[in-house]
Amino acid sequence: MVEIIIKKRDKQRLSEQEINYFIDGYVNGRIPDYQMSSLLMAIFLNGMDDEETLALTKAMLQSGETIDLSSLQSVVIDKHSTGGVGDKTSIILTPLIAAAGVPIAKMSGRGLSYTGGTIDKLESIPGFSVEMSLENFVNQVKTIGIALTGQTANLVPADKKIYALRDVTGTVNNLSLIASSIMSKKLASGADGIVIDLKLGDGAFIKTLEEAEHLAKIMRTIASGMSKKLTVVITSMQEPLGNAIGNALEVKESIDVLKGKGPTDLYEVTLTLGTEMLLLSGKYTDKTIAYQHLEELIHSGLAFEKLKHWIEAQGGNVNALENTDLLPRYTFSQTYNSKSNGYIQQIKASKLGLASVKLGAGREKKGDIIDFGAGIILHKKVGSQVVEGENLATLYTNNEALLPLAVKYMDEAYQIGEIEPTKEPLIYKIIR
Amino acid sequence: MVEIIIKKRDKQRLSEQEINYFIDGYVNGRIPDYQMSSLLMAIFLNGMDDEETLALTKAMLQSGETIDLSSLQSVVIDKHSTGGVGDKTSIILTPLIAAAGVPIAKMSGRGLSYTGGTIDKLESIPGFSVEMSLENFVNQVKTIGIALTGQTANLVPADKKIYALRDVTGTVNNLSLIASSIMSKKLASGADGIVIDLKLGDGAFIKTLEEAEHLAKIMRTIASGMSKKLTVVITSMQEPLGNAIGNALEVKESIDVLKGKGPTDLYEVTLTLGTEMLLLSGKYTDKTIAYQHLEELIHSGLAFEKLKHWIEAQGGNVNALENTDLLPRYTFSQTYNSKSNGYIQQIKASKLGLASVKLGAGREKKGDIIDFGAGIILHKKVGSQVVEGENLATLYTNNEALLPLAVKYMDEAYQIGEIEPTKEPLIYKIIR
Repeated sequence: MVEIIIKKRDKQRLSEQEINYFIDGYVNGRIPDYQMSSLLMAIFLNGMDDEETLALTKAMLQSGETIDLSSLQSVVIDKHSTGGVGDKTSIILTPLIAAAGVPIAKMSGRGLSYTGGTIDKLESIPGFSVEMSLENFVNQVKTIGIALTGQTANLVPADKKIYALRDVTGTVNNLSLIASSIMSKKLASGADGIVIDLKLGDGAFIKTLEEAEHLAKIMRTIASGMSKKLTVVITSMQEPLGNAIGNALEVKESIDVLKGKGPTDLYEVTLTLGTEMLLLSGKYTDKTIAYQHLEELIHSGLAFEKLKHWIEAQGGNVNALENTDLLPRYTFSQTYNSKSNGYIQQIKASKLGLASVKLGAGREKKGDIIDFGAGIILHKKVGSQVVEGENLATLYTNNEALLPLAVKYMDEAYQIGEIEPTKEPLIYKIIR
Repeated sequence: MVEIIIKKRDKQRLSEQEINYFIDGYVNGRIPDYQMSSLLMAIFLNGMDDEETLALTKAMLQSGETIDLSSLQSVVIDKHSTGGVGDKTSIILTPLIAAAGVPIAKMSGRGLSYTGGTIDKLESIPGFSVEMSLENFVNQVKTIGIALTGQTANLVPADKKIYALRDVTGTVNNLSLIASSIMSKKLASGADGIVIDLKLGDGAFIKTLEEAEHLAKIMRTIASGMSKKLTVVITSMQEPLGNAIGNALEVKESIDVLKGKGPTDLYEVTLTLGTEMLLLSGKYTDKTIAYQHLEELIHSGLAFEKLKHWIEAQGGNVNALENTDLLPRYTFSQTYNSKSNGYIQQIKASKLGLASVKLGAGREKKGDIIDFGAGIILHKKVGSQVVEGENLATLYTNNEALLPLAVKYMDEAYQIGEIEPTKEPLIYKIIR
């Protein structure tokens, strides 16, 4: 192992055999954390080329079990978001795409730090559970065309162990490490095609378009090396997506979109991703027709019906979908008002994410309990003209003492100025 | 800690406060190995400037106790070698400098891998022990002007812990880390002035003069920042120093030098280092006079007398110094002969060091037991003209089975060619 560390330290390529050696050794406990973290820093600073990154992804994939979805006898398309604030597209897309006849067998994650997790959001629906055997997971997809669970413990154990280490050793933001982490998990979940929602901006870990394109290129190399189809959609995470941040609040907003309502930015991003999923499935070849079909599924109510079937199949209270007052609620609320006249120049997504965590909607550390009713609703977004004292957002929580802490982050999030800002694009680029 | 790692990862300077934080936290167990090793790799690859290196040295120095030698009421000069093969200058210089009236209070180390350790060599003298209280250590210096012990457990604990980690994480050969490791230990030992024997060549970890000069510069910056005097002598470790490699064999050769005999290269390097120690002590200002005085101490027998006093004071059998047949011996020996006619172009010190370890004279891993009688005597050195079958060296051991393993390394060490080689200088540079 020391020789492998020294090789990468001295800017040399690692062979597939060497990469397999350290991944296998680390997962099996023969290689200690302190050697792995030293190697990760050397990889972070000296990089890995495409071949090394592909070998790393394969080694991680092979570290645990992989899901075989061939019994579904259908092309399975997965979607992955690199994480953002107010990002509830998975909740909307899962029933929407299933309603379009493309089976969805999805493994999602929980939230940590300022980005939320799909499972946490869905668990705010009373009774909803992601606990199921792998057999039941596949059976549910066969029966109703849709199932969502958490990652099993045996799925890419190398990523779990390495990610936990990267998190505490300053080695998170390396494109090869990010790409191999995302791709190994998606490949292990058994999908034939993957749409990546690559978030770009203040609330994402990717801050520049150049970096986003580079990451997309690495992921495409991995996918082609593994004979999988991949589309990357680079979308904006400069301000939060939609108006709702917080678990039950985001479920409610997702239902709005599935009923043809909801904020236009969220609607647009969701349908763009959905269109790419349909194209990747091979069931559609025309972008406009695919998009229109998704709109029809929403307006006909079929997508919402699919949501109800799905939530019911996983133990959730369907009444709470019809009457969202049955979702977890808040005891305390407070408006957040503009401090000046002008145009909103910026609403830093990262700061709103942190404000939401402070209100109880997220975890500051692993194991923290979530207040499902807590969160933030935005009434104005970037580009809006506002006057002093005008209500910009409302904060919700079940613990009144947390409000002042959240307000501090709100203050840091907003920038209001005299000139009307030019809005950044919502969708930067689609790389098929 | 993650913020500190990220700062260094991103090529930023660490403040004195940050450096103190991670050294203190690591020694006290609050910072785990895996974070320290990640930081060490970032330091290795992105470097530390002079100020950071000085702060690191200070923080390491302050991690444990420091020896107060002020009660000696004399300038104390220490000497440190960066490590080589056949390097027994400390055994000769300790009594020689003490005989010149400069008190020697020395803390030495044990050998690991292919470089030997002064303490191991001295322990080949029956009865000799370095175990003594700090009080007895200082008292012995007061009484006979000379004492040598191992580093106490409380001396620079940060270096012990960090060095062990660097050894297994590919972060040994960084000049700032090397300089702070050496200097913190020497500064903690209480010396007023330090002569560094900076070894350069195949058998040393420094391979180029440029690198040696850079390391010397960093060490001088640290010394001046700590108001200590420092001289660096850059000497050759291209081939082994002297003819003897192995513990009792090296003690025997040291006695030879103290009696005015012994190989000229060893004699020359030892007296050059000794001269610099005398100059640094302030008792001598003229180099030639200092050198001549050391020669007089040898030829008058006073230096050898001092050796006997010292060894006796630390429990060693003085008869074994007069009659070296009483030192540990070997049961088996084997000559190593030239395979061709020509000039010896190279004798790789590292390979001879490894051959000696294989014979039992060193440790392959911590805790290995040393065969004090084992080792190698060179009969020919670089530049000698030899004929096929001529005896180049003799191997000694108490375990016959080890001889073939050692011969393999001997084969890799020697290069014999037709043209007479130009010999590298023995002493490259003295930086006062």
